[in-house]
Amino acid sequence: MTDTLEALSGFTEQMKKEMVQWRRHLHANPELSFHEDKTSLFVYETLQSFGSLEITRPTKTSVMARLIGSCPGKTLAIRADMDALPIQEESSYDFISKNPGVMHACGHDGHTAILLTTAKILSGLKEQINGEIRFIFQHAEEVPPGGAIQMVEAGVMDGVDMVIGLHLVSTMEVGNLAINSGTLHPALGNFDIKIMGKGGHGASPHETIDSLTIAAQVVTNLQQIVSRNIDPFETVALSITKIHGGAFDGNAAYNVIPDTLELGGTVRGFNEELLDSIPALMERIIKGITVAHGAAYQFSYKKGYRPVINDHQIAALVEESLIEAFGAEAVHKAKPIMPGEDFSEYLQKAPGAYFYIGAGNQAKGIVYPHHHPRFAIDEDALAIGVKAFLYAVFKLLG
Amino acid sequence: MTDTLEALSGFTEQMKKEMVQWRRHLHANPELSFHEDKTSLFVYETLQSFGSLEITRPTKTSVMARLIGSCPGKTLAIRADMDALPIQEESSYDFISKNPGVMHACGHDGHTAILLTTAKILSGLKEQINGEIRFIFQHAEEVPPGGAIQMVEAGVMDGVDMVIGLHLVSTMEVGNLAINSGTLHPALGNFDIKIMGKGGHGASPHETIDSLTIAAQVVTNLQQIVSRNIDPFETVALSITKIHGGAFDGNAAYNVIPDTLELGGTVRGFNEELLDSIPALMERIIKGITVAHGAAYQFSYKKGYRPVINDHQIAALVEESLIEAFGAEAVHKAKPIMPGEDFSEYLQKAPGAYFYIGAGNQAKGIVYPHHHPRFAIDEDALAIGVKAFLYAVFKLLG
Amino acid sequence: MTDTLEALSGFTEQMKKEMVQWRRHLHANPELSFHEDKTSLFVYETLQSFGSLEITRPTKTSVMARLIGSCPGKTLAIRADMDALPIQEESSYDFISKNPGVMHACGHDGHTAILLTTAKILSGLKEQINGEIRFIFQHAEEVPPGGAIQMVEAGVMDGVDMVIGLHLVSTMEVGNLAINSGTLHPALGNFDIKIMGKGGHGASPHETIDSLTIAAQVVTNLQQIVSRNIDPFETVALSITKIHGGAFDGNAAYNVIPDTLELGGTVRGFNEELLDSIPALMERIIKGITVAHGAAYQFSYKKGYRPVINDHQIAALVEESLIEAFGAEAVHKAKPIMPGEDFSEYLQKAPGAYFYIGAGNQAKGIVYPHHHPRFAIDEDALAIGVKAFLYAVFKLLG
Amino acid sequence: MTDTLEALSGFTEQMKKEMVQWRRHLHANPELSFHEDKTSLFVYETLQSFGSLEITRPTKTSVMARLIGSCPGKTLAIRADMDALPIQEESSYDFISKNPGVMHACGHDGHTAILLTTAKILSGLKEQINGEIRFIFQHAEEVPPGGAIQMVEAGVMDGVDMVIGLHLVSTMEVGNLAINSGTLHPALGNFDIKIMGKGGHGASPHETIDSLTIAAQVVTNLQQIVSRNIDPFETVALSITKIHGGAFDGNAAYNVIPDTLELGGTVRGFNEELLDSIPALMERIIKGITVAHGAAYQFSYKKGYRPVINDHQIAALVEESLIEAFGAEAVHKAKPIMPGEDFSEYLQKAPGAYFYIGAGNQAKGIVYPHHHPRFAIDEDALAIGVKAFLYAVFKLLG
Repeated sequence: MTDTLEALSGFTEQMKKEMVQWRRHLHANPELSFHEDKTSLFVYETLQSFGSLEITRPTKTSVMARLIGSCPGKTLAIRADMDALPIQEESSYDFISKNPGVMHACGHDGHTAILLTTAKILSGLKEQINGEIRFIFQHAEEVPPGGAIQMVEAGVMDGVDMVIGLHLVSTMEVGNLAINSGTLHPALGNFDIKIMGKGGHGASPHETIDSLTIAAQVVTNLQQIVSRNIDPFETVALSITKIHGGAFDGNAAYNVIPDTLELGGTVRGFNEELLDSIPALMERIIKGITVAHGAAYQFSYKKGYRPVINDHQIAALVEESLIEAFGAEAVHKAKPIMPGEDFSEYLQKAPGAYFYIGAGNQAKGIVYPHHHPRFAIDEDALAIGVKAFLYAVFKLLG
Repeated sequence: MTDTLEALSGFTEQMKKEMVQWRRHLHANPELSFHEDKTSLFVYETLQSFGSLEITRPTKTSVMARLIGSCPGKTLAIRADMDALPIQEESSYDFISKNPGVMHACGHDGHTAILLTTAKILSGLKEQINGEIRFIFQHAEEVPPGGAIQMVEAGVMDGVDMVIGLHLVSTMEVGNLAINSGTLHPALGNFDIKIMGKGGHGASPHETIDSLTIAAQVVTNLQQIVSRNIDPFETVALSITKIHGGAFDGNAAYNVIPDTLELGGTVRGFNEELLDSIPALMERIIKGITVAHGAAYQFSYKKGYRPVINDHQIAALVEESLIEAFGAEAVHKAKPIMPGEDFSEYLQKAPGAYFYIGAGNQAKGIVYPHHHPRFAIDEDALAIGVKAFLYAVFKLLG
Repeated sequence: MTDTLEALSGFTEQMKKEMVQWRRHLHANPELSFHEDKTSLFVYETLQSFGSLEITRPTKTSVMARLIGSCPGKTLAIRADMDALPIQEESSYDFISKNPGVMHACGHDGHTAILLTTAKILSGLKEQINGEIRFIFQHAEEVPPGGAIQMVEAGVMDGVDMVIGLHLVSTMEVGNLAINSGTLHPALGNFDIKIMGKGGHGASPHETIDSLTIAAQVVTNLQQIVSRNIDPFETVALSITKIHGGAFDGNAAYNVIPDTLELGGTVRGFNEELLDSIPALMERIIKGITVAHGAAYQFSYKKGYRPVINDHQIAALVEESLIEAFGAEAVHKAKPIMPGEDFSEYLQKAPGAYFYIGAGNQAKGIVYPHHHPRFAIDEDALAIGVKAFLYAVFKLLG
Repeated sequence: MTDTLEALSGFTEQMKKEMVQWRRHLHANPELSFHEDKTSLFVYETLQSFGSLEITRPTKTSVMARLIGSCPGKTLAIRADMDALPIQEESSYDFISKNPGVMHACGHDGHTAILLTTAKILSGLKEQINGEIRFIFQHAEEVPPGGAIQMVEAGVMDGVDMVIGLHLVSTMEVGNLAINSGTLHPALGNFDIKIMGKGGHGASPHETIDSLTIAAQVVTNLQQIVSRNIDPFETVALSITKIHGGAFDGNAAYNVIPDTLELGGTVRGFNEELLDSIPALMERIIKGITVAHGAAYQFSYKKGYRPVINDHQIAALVEESLIEAFGAEAVHKAKPIMPGEDFSEYLQKAPGAYFYIGAGNQAKGIVYPHHHPRFAIDEDALAIGVKAFLYAVFKLLG
């Protein structure tokens, strides 16, 4: 560990400044999921400048770098995600997004900068590393089915023994970290339903098949999946989040029962097998209700991310390393949260652990939640992220 | 018409007294539908005492008498119903029902007495009658499918050209009559539904198929038949009138989701063809909803009486005769009402008219509705009924 | 009547040609409701050319002309409506609409031409007219609350004893006419409902007040007004015809339960008093359901046209005149239909009759329904309309 | 521990035979909750025969015995429940219930026999006991609000430091035991709802306030509490388990919409505070729905048992003692189950642990679940229960 600490002492103020510059460059030039062309090129070239890394492009807009340690050992992957969101930034920083309607509103710019700096430092510590470290710079985390599947298909996890990752969290004060040894992010699926009735004048309902009243029944009956078909000990949410039928204005909006009506929504839960059983339950209900009223339907269910479930042993080791690095009072037990995260795909291939780095600062007004037009991070969190990765690396690789 | 008036003058006070005696005898000895043994025997023997009638027993508890007029002409049937109801009478008359739990609470005792007296008078006027008059004393009007179907099957309407009937009405003041030239009583059907789920503990709903929540959906969706599937210009009522599921008390009533649940109700309307289309709509809904939730069902629909629809021409003639007999101010336009009436079966065989005789008397406290334990009639209505029949007979047969 | 026939013989082929020209001019230059500037100017100037009429402008875009007969008598109003619809015409006539997105798709161009020609002919028959005839050229029939209210407020019905009007009907073959002596068009109201819950992530429904599931309950419960609260003998339709809540696409469409949701629809019926009781029933339900789930609501109900109910006596006279003009086999009993018609406003001031002139022609391919982009009329119907008005005028004024 | 083992060696075959006899005597003479007169007398007299116990009657049908150890120490309470169920036994044992319709179908006879024997053994070990042991023989566990509340009110827990209890489980093979260190039994509440509409004929729904369709809405909307108002991470079940409205047969069952309708059901969960918030949510829904349709309601919610939540430390100690007594492979992690258990009341006063003793035996056909007419236990489980208590006692009191 003395070696590690020495190594960390190599993490100079200069490096921190550079990391902030990288992060601000990325922040000012955000790119949407699957379109991280300049971002991935920047990462690629920056990694090349470190020397001693084997760098490849698993997909068009992602990058992987391998660092082969001097001593034999296990292979550990570390992942950062790089894509931005379709949000118009409303901040006043001088590094505000230059791309209208696109914004790093989830901190992936920070993730990328942290992993770049981690890679730079570790590149200089090759002699002290047992085994191999893979730096995975992933595209497209924000849009299911996500980029992680493609990364895995491209082989980035082949031969990997363990995988770790982190997320900056603007709603946790900087200086705090969180991890747990179980479920963190749910499995999820999004669905679309189309009710196909027969339109007509609202004054002659008997000549129509009223898609709107049928849709109301579909909504109501779908709610009974959670209340009636799911074991109360399980955690499942099923919400219908959109419904659109009929004209918006004009006489038709009041007189004409629409032919069709469209619904959409989401299903989330931590038991993937249970979640996989829900589309069939949904379709049974949708079919039954539409048949009951002589209508037809279309139903599509797009399975989203799998659940992020930390491995008990690896999570325990990472937690240990974080406590060593930051003290026990800074390391909290993470509660599972409902947004999906495709870090789960890597966990299908190797056990691993995902953890959170506080990046909020109420005193500085850094309080806006993720995906908010005024989302921001306290850049002090970046160095904390690097330190956390470094301690975890040496804990896991010995 | 002079002849008729002479005939009517033969309707003596003595006859009226006798009619009241008959009615009171019947009232004190009510018999349930299909069990009118003593009633029909009394009618049979009374008719025999008149002479000049051909008397037969179309069914075990009914009677028919034919009066063949001296001159050729049409055949007119007149119908009275004779059965009582399973109600405990609460009146204080000295001719109160002697049969516990059985009561003439709908006035059929009066109908029978009126038709007997009508037959007696007409028996003495054979020479003046053109054609034939059939006096139909029907059993079992109160319980669908009713006695009228059996009467028709037994041939009482064979060769009949016209048919008339009347009903005493306790909620219309005596002295008033009502008729119209269209719909009077609805077609109807009663139904039973059984929802067959899978019982279990209320704390583990996912191990059950909850017949109770499914039944709630069936109830709700069936309501949409009237609001969505029926032309607003049509008159249809569909009501679910009973629902029973689960224990009544004890722990099980609170803890155990029942296996099955039973529902029942009624459908009424005036468009028989439309009504006949409703069971299929109902079953489509019940099937769809139960399939939607993995349950099974049983559905039975028992078609009840057909609609009573007066023939325009005959109703016009009868109305004319009533106005001649009682004056225009006494004869009202009848509104259709919702209880069923198997007089409709006779109308399948010959055109006809049904009308109402006021039998209430607020001053005398005769105000209780039909089927009420204190239902009563003003016996002055009996002579009015006879007069109405006599005037109608001579109007219709010429 | 001989005079009348002579008068009619004055209805020359030349006049018919002129009427068709007027109609085509109007058809090519349609104007939306409340914007009938050129249309009303054209009518005004054409009426002026007849001489002998007192012409006024009751409102900015309407015209009234009074013809005072030589002999004293009653005052009869005849009404035509002049506005067009926001529909893009798809026909190939050379007089196709010149105004993009505006079209005479309901025949009001024909109504105006018919009434102009009727006024021209009657202007020449002043000597033979008892009483007064008012020609009402109304604006804005298509958009509730309609122009008729303004016309009545402007006094066009002051002193009027009777009012008549007609509508061309493309779905009835030319040569046929229809009238009845009761209800023809319903009373109606349109409504808007806003459900105000509390938005949030679909994975945390307990932190939201789910406007969408609440809206589904509102829809379902509103359906029970017709099935439970309305006398089955009444004719009422209540339809919800639009529902909009949630984003249309993007992640938010699947993840975010919307704050608010908007619904709209229509209520129709022939019993105006009953219809007036429905908004309170609706609000009771909307309020109860939203309170049940902790949400708020907005409800607005805009009362539309009143019912068109023909006066028995006047309808009988008009029917008589139509039979005299066209023969009994051409004159049918009109069935009530569900669209509203603000001719009803005139009927609040004087008894009257409204009737229909067949304007379809299957052989010529004139088969499209009203408000269809290919709606058309057989112009032979125009002369029939004039003749119908002329016969009715002399029947009603004597 | 050597002392303890010696003590246990004092648990002779003779004592086991006696314990079986006690259990069979109790089984043959079951008494319903709050009516355990003979049972409690039997327990009282048996305890008296041991000597060295201070015996009191906290309530009319319960018994408490105090054993004051020779050395100072903590006070440990051990609880057994004694009441039987209103079930007709269908077994063929010669000690089958002599009381028609009453049966020990939940194993409380066994619990009582185990605790008697435990008390007898410990009575002989007074010198080796540090502190005090209280033997609580509780009445009325089966019927909320249960006897435990009364016991606590009577002071049985005053001065108690720890409390333990066990339950025989016929669906776990004999030889196995189960315990966990958290939630075991839920908090619960039972409810009754009465919907008060206005009855009437099914053919005239507008003259009624249809309690049945309103009840269907109440059922449906109550289901949305779990799906919409409860955090998906919480465990809550809300089931409506009974519904009764309308006549059962006769014409009224089909024709008459009932005035009132009654519902009942249960709510269960492990978060007592959350559960306490549910009645208000329920009433908001019931009130909103009934107001929406002009009906009235009655709602009563009877809070049942609190949740049984084992204390981490005590559960860990008891688990340790069970592993010492039976080996690690015999001791399983107990999963929470949904029936309530008023052992929870003792846990309000002192930390404690509850655990399960397998009492089934598939080879012997002892497979029927609790509350089944053929429920039985393998009597070998009794000695296991005693041994478990003894090991736990010495572990907890040192």
